[in-house]
Amino acid sequence: MMRELLLAEVYRVLEPGPVVLLTTAHRGHANVMTLSWHMMVEFEPPLVACVVSDADHSSIALRATRECVIAVPAVGLAPKVVAVGNCSGRDTDKFTAFGLTPTPAALVTPPLIAECFANLECRVTDTRLVKRYGLFILEVVKAWTDPGQEHPRTFHHHGYGTFVVDGETIHLTSKMP
Amino acid sequence: MMRELLLAEVYRVLEPGPVVLLTTAHRGHANVMTLSWHMMVEFEPPLVACVVSDADHSSIALRATRECVIAVPAVGLAPKVVAVGNCSGRDTDKFTAFGLTPTPAALVTPPLIAECFANLECRVTDTRLVKRYGLFILEVVKAWTDPGQEHPRTFHHHGYGTFVVDGETIHLTSKMP
Repeated sequence: MMRELLLAEVYRVLEPGPVVLLTTAHRGHANVMTLSWHMMVEFEPPLVACVVSDADHSSIALRATRECVIAVPAVGLAPKVVAVGNCSGRDTDKFTAFGLTPTPAALVTPPLIAECFANLECRVTDTRLVKRYGLFILEVVKAWTDPGQEHPRTFHHHGYGTFVVDGETIHLTSKMP
Repeated sequence: MMRELLLAEVYRVLEPGPVVLLTTAHRGHANVMTLSWHMMVEFEPPLVACVVSDADHSSIALRATRECVIAVPAVGLAPKVVAVGNCSGRDTDKFTAFGLTPTPAALVTPPLIAECFANLECRVTDTRLVKRYGLFILEVVKAWTDPGQEHPRTFHHHGYGTFVVDGETIHLTSKMP
């Protein structure tokens, strides 16, 4: 069950730096990879940078179709998310293998992931740094949240299979959005 | 007290997405800003992307000198880090105003911050996306950690002064570095 998320609120999902999933679709096959190298670039329209290297099978689809979905998992999905990162779409249908449910997106062909608490439909808008670094600039064109997942705790990669889960929330008076 | 950190280990500090400080130095004046829009781009030599917009006073120094230090604070510094983000180096000596201690770096002119548990000396290596997005590619040329700060908990910005602090650590078998 997905509810639309205002595009102006997208940065609040990605700026904390969670491990995310990235889906692509190419020649009738959807694929999904695990990604931690992403950041916000602009608030609205929301622009996101991410690194998808040549070594990632998803790179072929992303370059060819210029579309993807960033799906943000809560910690309950961590074992599946790590399993997704441990194999390749070259030889595995990862949605079936790990029980992730692809769901049609509104504006792009790659699927949303039903189990994720946020899904961001993206189009590639700048490829100038792709050849050198695998760095894509994406525009989020539609965003969704699952209101059934209240206060989702994300997880963050510290290297070598060590992850830190969201802990306490603190509030400090900030002039920043 | 700083100990050198292997450059190959730098990604483990930034990949989780913490709020960081960024120092610059220009015409004899050091400055510091708060930054959450950063990501890893390459493991080794470590490359980092970050967004420093024209609206940030630090942008002038970063463009002119092509040097900065990324200093990573633990949660105890959160009130100071937010205060740094709430004012501008145009009219404030933030090191003095907030009691942050600038310390000489080894290879660049901008200072390390003594209170931070990690400090990354950086040089700008690619400016192709600066004009459009304020997106700089940095190479980390020297890195430091403070062995006196064991298990530092970082904090992550969720927007409007809401921050989430590192909670529990989990381990999952990953093939990724």
